[in-house]
Parts: sequence; structure tokens; C-alpha cells
Amino acid sequence: MNLSELHILSKRVGIKLKQQSQILVTAESCTGGGIASAITDAAGCSAWFDRAFVTYSNEAKMEMLDVKAETLEEFGAVSEQTVNEMVLGALQFSRGSYAVAVSGIAGPSGGTEEKPVGTVCFGWGNAQGVLETATHHFSGNREEVRLQACWHALEHLEDILDREQD
Amino acid sequence: MNLSELHILSKRVGIKLKQQSQILVTAESCTGGGIASAITDAAGCSAWFDRAFVTYSNEAKMEMLDVKAETLEEFGAVSEQTVNEMVLGALQFSRGSYAVAVSGIAGPSGGTEEKPVGTVCFGWGNAQGVLETATHHFSGNREEVRLQACWHALEHLEDILDREQD
Repeated sequence: MNLSELHILSKRVGIKLKQQSQILVTAESCTGGGIASAITDAAGCSAWFDRAFVTYSNEAKMEMLDVKAETLEEFGAVSEQTVNEMVLGALQFSRGSYAVAVSGIAGPSGGTEEKPVGTVCFGWGNAQGVLETATHHFSGNREEVRLQACWHALEHLEDILDREQD
Repeated sequence: MNLSELHILSKRVGIKLKQQSQILVTAESCTGGGIASAITDAAGCSAWFDRAFVTYSNEAKMEMLDVKAETLEEFGAVSEQTVNEMVLGALQFSRGSYAVAVSGIAGPSGGTEEKPVGTVCFGWGNAQGVLETATHHFSGNREEVRLQACWHALEHLEDILDREQD
């Protein structure tokens, strides 16, 4: 998968968001705005996107998304607990009706035995709250890990939108 | 210029930010997180980047960056007045010591006679306040306009960093 394919996926997700009259907000750590950039590659995206929170540091996660210091302390920035709070913060501090949050270790440094490079946590939510969190382990270099993280965030959002529509 | 070249530029800017112990914050409308994504492509970027505000809608610009409704009303979202306020908001609501803000019309729609597709406004600032604002007219499709906007934002930031160091 490459950036062009990510843009095709993001357009498809955008059309589904528009069909369901939903607005997406993203809260991004290791992807650094890559999901928002892919979403806004699509012309007309103002119909389904209005903002993103790129919270690379712990301070940014706390200040922009109200992630608790205790959560970061106890579970780490790369944890399902943290992305859970990132989803809730993104929904609270935006007009978004769907949110996706991503926090991971893109590398090349920062990995540990418990959380090696390529570990990425995801969260998805909507007005009902957090719908799902998940942890994935991607292979590849920094660029490849980040691209796969953007891809998975949007691909699983598409699954959720399909499911919610049924 | 392509995305790989943008990443090379962003790494170079990152090294200069680090050498000068500066933290960059971005406030992005039409680039949609593309500058933040380029900056965070560089390993170790937590030394010079902690967050970005992707404010695609007018509401996001007002709510996240304190851009005034009157400014948007009188001059429009794509104006040097608006990017001026985006720079100030980004510095105010972050730990950044340098800010770059971008707002433009990437197309294919949204252009007017006065502000055709490809019109992009830029602002750069630091602790001293807003250093410069500028308006550029780029050619090409949506993707090309956005890429050129990311490039110019970082290339001129590099010039400013070189100048400030002298």
C-alpha cells in the first residue's frame, strides 16, 4: 500500500461520512497529521472534516485533549487507555461526530521489550462514546509504520461506518 | 518537487530548530496537517515539535486558535489577516517558540476572481510576534497546490531560522 492508495481509501471514507452526515475529527500522535492530510486530500472534504488535533507530546495530549496525567503515567502514551481518552477529548473539543485516535512507536528509537517499534494503538468513537480500541504491531521503517497506521485507522473506520449504517 | 524532497527539507528544518533549541507549532487549513506530517516524518522530531492545530473550518480557527469572527467576516479565511491571527493563536495555545500558519484555496472549487484557486496565505512568527505574512499563487491541481504550500511554509521558515541565527 502506498500514499496514492491511502488517498483513494480516504476519499471512499469521506463519501461514506458525507452520506451519513457525519463529521470526522482525528487525534494523532505518531501519524503526526497524516490521517488529516489524507482526509483533506479529497476535494469537498469540508463536508465531513473540520479539524484535527496533532498531539505529538504528552503535554499536547493533556492540554488539547484532556488526557489525564495519571493515564499517561500508569499506561504510557502508547496504550489503549490513552487513545481511549484521546477519542473522548477529540469528540468533546470539536464538532466531530466520529473520532479516530492513534498513538504509537514509529521508530527507529523509542521501542521497548513490551512495546517494540511498530506498536500502534488505535481508538474509534462516535456520539455513543468509544466504540473500539486496538493495538497492532506493524513491520517496516518509520515511514512504513506511519503509513500502515494511517491506513488501518481509516480502513477500520470504514468498517465501522458500514456496520453502523446497517 | 515531490513528497520525498519535502521530507528532506523538513529534516533540514528540524535540525536547525533543534540547534537553536526551538519548538515549532503549525496551524494549518488547506494543507490539512501536511506540514505536521512532514515534520514528524523525521526521527527524533519530539525535540523540535510537540503539536499542530489543523483548523480546516472557520469554527475550528475560532475555537482552536482564537481567530476573530470579525476577521474571518471582513477579510475571509484566506487572508493575511487570518493567518496573522492563526500564528498568534498557535503560539498562545502551545509550547511552540516558532509558528507557521497556512490558509489557502487548494481547489478545485472555492476560487473567486479576487482569490483564484492556488491562492495561499502564509504567516510565520516567534516569541517576538508575527514576523511575516505573505500571499502566493500556486499552479497545479489540489495535490500540487497543497504540496507547494507545505514546501513554501518550511522553506521560508528555514530562511527565517538562518536569518535569526546570524
